Amino acid sequence: MSLLTVGTMAFDTVETRYGKAERIVGGACTYNAWAASYFTEDVRVVSIIGEDFPKDEIALLNKRGADTAGVKLVEGGKSFFWEGKYHKDMIGRDTLVTDLNVLADFDPVLPESYKDSRFIMLGNLTPTIQRKVLDQIEESPALTVLDTMDFWINSDKATLMEVIARVDVLSINDEEARLLTGEHALVTAAAEILKMGPSYLIVKKGEHGAFLFSLNDIFFVPGLPLAEVKDPTGAGDTFAGGFIGYLAATEDTSFNNLKRAVVYGSAMASFVVEDFGLERLRHLNERLIKQRVMRFKDLVSFNL
Amino acid sequence: MSLLTVGTMAFDTVETRYGKAERIVGGACTYNAWAASYFTEDVRVVSIIGEDFPKDEIALLNKRGADTAGVKLVEGGKSFFWEGKYHKDMIGRDTLVTDLNVLADFDPVLPESYKDSRFIMLGNLTPTIQRKVLDQIEESPALTVLDTMDFWINSDKATLMEVIARVDVLSINDEEARLLTGEHALVTAAAEILKMGPSYLIVKKGEHGAFLFSLNDIFFVPGLPLAEVKDPTGAGDTFAGGFIGYLAATEDTSFNNLKRAVVYGSAMASFVVEDFGLERLRHLNERLIKQRVMRFKDLVSFNL
Repeated sequence: MSLLTVGTMAFDTVETRYGKAERIVGGACTYNAWAASYFTEDVRVVSIIGEDFPKDEIALLNKRGADTAGVKLVEGGKSFFWEGKYHKDMIGRDTLVTDLNVLADFDPVLPESYKDSRFIMLGNLTPTIQRKVLDQIEESPALTVLDTMDFWINSDKATLMEVIARVDVLSINDEEARLLTGEHALVTAAAEILKMGPSYLIVKKGEHGAFLFSLNDIFFVPGLPLAEVKDPTGAGDTFAGGFIGYLAATEDTSFNNLKRAVVYGSAMASFVVEDFGLERLRHLNERLIKQRVMRFKDLVSFNL
Repeated sequence: MSLLTVGTMAFDTVETRYGKAERIVGGACTYNAWAASYFTEDVRVVSIIGEDFPKDEIALLNKRGADTAGVKLVEGGKSFFWEGKYHKDMIGRDTLVTDLNVLADFDPVLPESYKDSRFIMLGNLTPTIQRKVLDQIEESPALTVLDTMDFWINSDKATLMEVIARVDVLSINDEEARLLTGEHALVTAAAEILKMGPSYLIVKKGEHGAFLFSLNDIFFVPGLPLAEVKDPTGAGDTFAGGFIGYLAATEDTSFNNLKRAVVYGSAMASFVVEDFGLERLRHLNERLIKQRVMRFKDLVSFNL
């Protein structure tokens, strides 16, 4: 089924203990679309780029089936740029540069052909932009997923709450769940968030895994212990892409299928961190993904 | 089967966001023996206490089947005392007071009847004391488990390495695994530790769960998300008690059974943190434990 994903397409300069990658292609929407493309061919991308964004990258996405009619190219503009350096623990990181560039004027207008999209991924952007995308969807979607971050919780909670009330799944990290509710215990925070509108909540804990909450159920998928995490950038967006891509492909939004989707998302995220940028995502296939998912299953399986 | 547990029996003063408990009974060995007593009646306790230690507490342990012939009572002495205050996140904590008291002269001498013990739990103590206990075991045990902490890794690594080489299972937390090996990635640290002697490694990650490593296998059990963690004190020792108690009861040291034991240990730990001190451990039963274990199974179960 059709999947619309909106978010940044960008350049990143990333330094980790494994080296430094200069001005590589990144952005939430790029990671998201790549991950989702392994599950469904009908991915519709909404983003904004400058003239400096490589045409090859767009062509590669198109080759994977993604529709990029919704990617606005700003003549003479420069793409969003982020530079960061990860701490030795590969979890903490310092942002060194954030140049919004063309993103500062992002005002997404959906192509007509996007307006019937069934699965909607609202990547981390201003809540106002996220709302604007939702407003342009004409058919009632099968599932909407919202990503956000602490910055918007602190700076525009009112609009964010309005968007949260309109989506089916909120996907945030543990600290953001605490910030949003003022509750420390995740089960209590989850109960509060599920009162705000969403039917499901995903709480990402980085290397420690992720929870999926509904009103009556809890599911947990651990982080796969990896010998080498070279670059954590994009892990959350890749997780989200695998998650919603799997759902769009299976057309089943039951809790049991959402559990599987969380595992598939985690599997995709476990790949992407093994190399810098999008590199690892460029050369996957169904067999590798299935094998990785089995490792997640084996990791937690026991008989009583 | 018989289970010998050696470690502290103590008084703790604990302050958390839920209140303050003054001079309540604690100590690694106490938590360990209580947890294990739900699985096997043949628990043999080795510890040292002062005259201030409540006789009732010893009687309660005896009532649960535990043999306390190996608990040395020092006339006129005072029991080990620890006072700590937990941070708001209930993970970090500050130690305010550590009075070794009678523990300073702990020189365990095993009763003859203990020397054929089949399962051995070496609680966190100086590596020299742990070695001394091992030296007194006459039959080759079915399984030995070693707990230790960063302090001994830093202060007496030579003796600690000698003890590590002699045990079957090392049980430490993630930071200790990193400290012991200099490796950040847990899979890499685990591989290094399994070269030091133990066949199995447990890496505890507090609220995030625990890994069980063997040379060829990895198993993970998450922390159960709880609405109220009132007092994390003794969680690790309760985990270890449930783990080795389950193994002693089932007399099966295969990896598959160790996985079950890790789940039972986690279940016991998830109970103990729900109230201050030993309180929650005093009123459990088989049905409650089984129900809790099922929650661990449900939390991670999915079908492909």
